[in-house]
Amino acid sequence: MQIVKEEGPITGEQIAERLHLTRATLRPDLSILTMSGYLDARPRVGYFYAGKKANSVISERLHKLLVNDYKALPIVVQESASAYDATVTLFLEDVGTLFVVNQKGLLVGVVSRKDLLRAAIGNKALEEMPVSIIMSRMPNIITCLPGESLYSAAKKLIDFQIDSLPVVRESEQDPRQFELLGRITKTTIAKAFVELGEESEV
Amino acid sequence: MQIVKEEGPITGEQIAERLHLTRATLRPDLSILTMSGYLDARPRVGYFYAGKKANSVISERLHKLLVNDYKALPIVVQESASAYDATVTLFLEDVGTLFVVNQKGLLVGVVSRKDLLRAAIGNKALEEMPVSIIMSRMPNIITCLPGESLYSAAKKLIDFQIDSLPVVRESEQDPRQFELLGRITKTTIAKAFVELGEESEV
Repeated sequence: MQIVKEEGPITGEQIAERLHLTRATLRPDLSILTMSGYLDARPRVGYFYAGKKANSVISERLHKLLVNDYKALPIVVQESASAYDATVTLFLEDVGTLFVVNQKGLLVGVVSRKDLLRAAIGNKALEEMPVSIIMSRMPNIITCLPGESLYSAAKKLIDFQIDSLPVVRESEQDPRQFELLGRITKTTIAKAFVELGEESEV
Repeated sequence: MQIVKEEGPITGEQIAERLHLTRATLRPDLSILTMSGYLDARPRVGYFYAGKKANSVISERLHKLLVNDYKALPIVVQESASAYDATVTLFLEDVGTLFVVNQKGLLVGVVSRKDLLRAAIGNKALEEMPVSIIMSRMPNIITCLPGESLYSAAKKLIDFQIDSLPVVRESEQDPRQFELLGRITKTTIAKAFVELGEESEV
């Protein structure tokens, strides 16, 4: 490691020479260091220090988890529903965010517990208020794709300070509109975090 | 690895003998394999196969993250506050959960956006409703300690289906009561998840 750090890129033969070992003796060690991500190897160039620690194992793993494998079912309300209907659905389904869809089932908005609480402490009756007035509306909605990494989805939740992301695909009829495939929430991320922590116990 | 898998527990000397190497030559390799979690070593017993993969590196890392290093400031209301005051605080501080404290600053309850929304759609005026009627009350509150792992806190959030955990320590005056040190929420966990995913880019 020291040799590679100071002199890399350096070939396996040169390292063996420096250590007074044969190439063959050294080979398994170099494989392990390469597999563990401490060293990187390029053909005809040699070994170089990858600057990686155990952390990179974690990071790489997180980047491989896919939204599609973690998404939960999306809970929806029609855009014609009232804010009261939406609140009832929120409690019945025990979620923090609802996706609002049009008659074709395409995503038109997102309404959260926070939006509904804000409406409820205002003085209007929720029964007479259409959910479409208080929802966040397309295209101002942050979405994610099924093939996206869970890391990327988590970063959107944090960066945009939201609790839930709709998982979408472009509508075949109109690529500016989205079909709903699922949801990724902070709960999804916390569950994935717990699963990662449990893996060694298997 | 093969030798240890098949014959472990086996001492370093025995492995060296099998490979026609000296103990000294072998030592660094065994250290790396032990540090990486592939092998485990016990004094006077020898090396044995730990049955661990990259996953255990992740899991071990998660178990080392401490609540104390990730906790956010707790946002509190007095138990004498009204549900309306609590709602205003929730919006001003932009949090999903408030901790309710008594005059000594000790934790007496927890009130969430969900509790307040439920109250708001009921027909009573929030201004006249004390927050203490709608809050969850001690001792029915799940808490965590500063020295606890973030993994353990995340597991509580998932297992008990809550959004926020107060970080507490026992009161010096009365060990059945708790002082508030901070909060761990699903946002905290999602942030930690994103940080872990970013580490290789450093």
